[in-house]
Amino acid sequence: MTKKNEPLARLDGKLTMIGFGSIGQALLPLLFRHFGLKPADVKIVKPGEDRSGLARELGVEVIPVRLEEGNFAAVLEPLVDKGDFLINLSVDVSSLALVKLCRERGALYLDTCNEPWGGRYDDPGLPPSRRSNYSLREEVLAWRLDKRSGPTAVITQGANPGLVSALLKQALLNIAADTHAELEAMPASYEDWAALAQQLGIKVVHIAERDTQVAKARKQRGEFVNTWSVRGFVDEGLQPAELGWGTHERHWPADAARHGFGSDAAIYLKRPGIGTRVRSWTPLEGPYHGFLVTHAESISIADHLTLRKDGQVVYRPTVHYAYHPSDDAVLSLHEMAGKNWQLQHRQRIVRDEIAEGMDELGVLLMGNPKGAYWYGSRLTIEQARELAPANSATSLQVVAGILGGMSWALCHPDAGLVEPDDLDHRVMLEAAMPYLGEVAGVYGDWTPLKERSPLFDEEKDEDDPWQFLNFRVA
Amino acid sequence: MTKKNEPLARLDGKLTMIGFGSIGQALLPLLFRHFGLKPADVKIVKPGEDRSGLARELGVEVIPVRLEEGNFAAVLEPLVDKGDFLINLSVDVSSLALVKLCRERGALYLDTCNEPWGGRYDDPGLPPSRRSNYSLREEVLAWRLDKRSGPTAVITQGANPGLVSALLKQALLNIAADTHAELEAMPASYEDWAALAQQLGIKVVHIAERDTQVAKARKQRGEFVNTWSVRGFVDEGLQPAELGWGTHERHWPADAARHGFGSDAAIYLKRPGIGTRVRSWTPLEGPYHGFLVTHAESISIADHLTLRKDGQVVYRPTVHYAYHPSDDAVLSLHEMAGKNWQLQHRQRIVRDEIAEGMDELGVLLMGNPKGAYWYGSRLTIEQARELAPANSATSLQVVAGILGGMSWALCHPDAGLVEPDDLDHRVMLEAAMPYLGEVAGVYGDWTPLKERSPLFDEEKDEDDPWQFLNFRVA
Repeated sequence: MTKKNEPLARLDGKLTMIGFGSIGQALLPLLFRHFGLKPADVKIVKPGEDRSGLARELGVEVIPVRLEEGNFAAVLEPLVDKGDFLINLSVDVSSLALVKLCRERGALYLDTCNEPWGGRYDDPGLPPSRRSNYSLREEVLAWRLDKRSGPTAVITQGANPGLVSALLKQALLNIAADTHAELEAMPASYEDWAALAQQLGIKVVHIAERDTQVAKARKQRGEFVNTWSVRGFVDEGLQPAELGWGTHERHWPADAARHGFGSDAAIYLKRPGIGTRVRSWTPLEGPYHGFLVTHAESISIADHLTLRKDGQVVYRPTVHYAYHPSDDAVLSLHEMAGKNWQLQHRQRIVRDEIAEGMDELGVLLMGNPKGAYWYGSRLTIEQARELAPANSATSLQVVAGILGGMSWALCHPDAGLVEPDDLDHRVMLEAAMPYLGEVAGVYGDWTPLKERSPLFDEEKDEDDPWQFLNFRVA
Repeated sequence: MTKKNEPLARLDGKLTMIGFGSIGQALLPLLFRHFGLKPADVKIVKPGEDRSGLARELGVEVIPVRLEEGNFAAVLEPLVDKGDFLINLSVDVSSLALVKLCRERGALYLDTCNEPWGGRYDDPGLPPSRRSNYSLREEVLAWRLDKRSGPTAVITQGANPGLVSALLKQALLNIAADTHAELEAMPASYEDWAALAQQLGIKVVHIAERDTQVAKARKQRGEFVNTWSVRGFVDEGLQPAELGWGTHERHWPADAARHGFGSDAAIYLKRPGIGTRVRSWTPLEGPYHGFLVTHAESISIADHLTLRKDGQVVYRPTVHYAYHPSDDAVLSLHEMAGKNWQLQHRQRIVRDEIAEGMDELGVLLMGNPKGAYWYGSRLTIEQARELAPANSATSLQVVAGILGGMSWALCHPDAGLVEPDDLDHRVMLEAAMPYLGEVAGVYGDWTPLKERSPLFDEEKDEDDPWQFLNFRVA
């Protein structure tokens, strides 16, 4: 196991970070800790000066430019060269544009979200499919088709998407071990992992997260409070709800649609994720209602766990996010919904003001006879502060995923564009573990049909608890 | 206008109060202020000793008995006699049983909710219709059929249900005056009021309430926090969502049902009110999502504003509650929903801990060309504390309705069983006004179609904004 202060890998080039919000600030101090970088090796590009004071405190130069389609190449070309590393932690800057630029320049790349240029997520003139993560992913995969090597670009490698793809693989191995399933060798290919998931009977995977962090000062009226980027959350939250669509599903949702192109691993609902509730479960919270917010992992995990026979899909689990954000974020969403999704003018990201709480973030694998299995990180705010400066539990879990992705990229600099599912989960977990607090695997007898209220008839499928119909809150 | 300390009416008999929760405690000091009562004239019957200490402080005897079907008559007969007053502010004690007992004893009666004996609201063995307020009301009305006089019993006379029926009448008069509508005389009968509402084009009435009161200490996990009775709120919240069903409605909700007996003024949805969101508006909050919790006024107002011609219903507005409880209550509902409506073990009613906020409670009349008209009370916690001890803004609005109902009953002691809609709204408002803070009437251009998000297609009726379809949050 890596120790907290051990170098993970050495970056000999320069590093440029785009964006310096909650995740950029959380990552910066750890770059020096883990990659042999000095302040002069790092530059930050962001719109406007850094008001956090952290960049100056650490001696890192900020280039105050808002990157747009028309200027990004001119701004970044002097900063990004062969052997350098570009980290994109911004919103509204196209991931694919940056990946292409890095490929031309011979630089490594990582982001935590496959972003489009600004204005696409919330352009009502575009059909929902075009505003989906599915569509963004297919564009990237199409570009990659004839480029399976070249400078490594790790996309969507934060906590989720990112780390959870590694947690999922470890969870499958844990269930296999706990149930004495036959496992001849460590799965090596996507098909191996998919076959293992099928063998274990996994029908549904949730990314099941309950954030209990609360600040001393309550959310005020007209204010959106979050433990990470408000813009990031609202952007993805207003995309269509998306989910990997499993082969066991037999009730097509009335508001669902297929994209009609690409992998077909996922579908979307014609409604925003922050307006879509699902039943889920974590060991410490118990049952809860989470939001089915679209995330890259819902699509990439479902796609990677797909088994085909004679060209026909024979196995795939349903995969989606079930996010219970912090209490003040739940209230912020409630208020925002009441205002027809107009974002509050005041926005507050809490970090140093957090008084207590934990981010309980993991994968929940359902379908194996031993029960629902949750495997993930329980990181308290106190632990996060002890482990790293300028972090909340939420940001540190994201940073843990980034550290794994960066160290993998530095060890595999010619892998071309990769998703979290393409990376060795052991490398990811080794880098991330020191920052995850308690990592626990817990079985439960929870199903979405368990202890449902008998007061009103609801549309349910009693024959198979793992139908999406049963998870969805009507 | 009555002054704050002016006697409203004189009660020469004794007064017995059943229940001594947030509303009982809020009312007790004002009984002495307004009805010429002395501590020895009042007795409280409640399960267990009074832990608030308020009864002892005011010198009022507490009889620690839980009233049930088998003991209530034996307990109450020695306490309730001709000319006495019985106030029922409890849960799980049948209003109709108490009304009958008061009639036999010659005593006056008032409650703020038409309660059944315990166990009916949440008995899954009963069909939803039997658990509805519609059904409870029809039972009372059936009993009343051959008894149109006798000791006055005022049922469902708090803030809402109760005071809002008076606010509604005043709101109709205000719109008539503001729009120079022809009004030959003060409406005197139900038909007069219904005709006025029809003349003014009123299609929908919401009881539109936004409670912004917050305590210093946040809701904890596993805790239900409310500004009034948790049991009262949860009981009604788990009843079916109910609404008076207007004649203009042309989209039958897929989950709706008619009762098949009685007035037919209201329908119910096959889901709990605290799981049913609707769009509404108050002047200070602006647009918001409220909960369509069943309330007696949704049914009685709709019934009283019904016009018939040749036996056919020709006019009725849609009437329902759109309740945005305090932020901590919203979070409590969210958590409770996630636990399949299992009530949290810990419950906290905030009053003295409230740090700030207001209860903005009024009627919202929609359909008149001048715009949506909200008329109601804006009572801050600071004002409530200045006006009366042992109150929050929420409890004092309820007490204001009770004071009106009691003074009306004392002046009309032989009126038999009456609903708030049967009472003279001027008497109600005169008694209540000193306790309502600012009473405001505000027009707005809000409709449930205004500024809807263009991101996703939603089922809407663009031809008539006032269709229930447009209010409901899907």
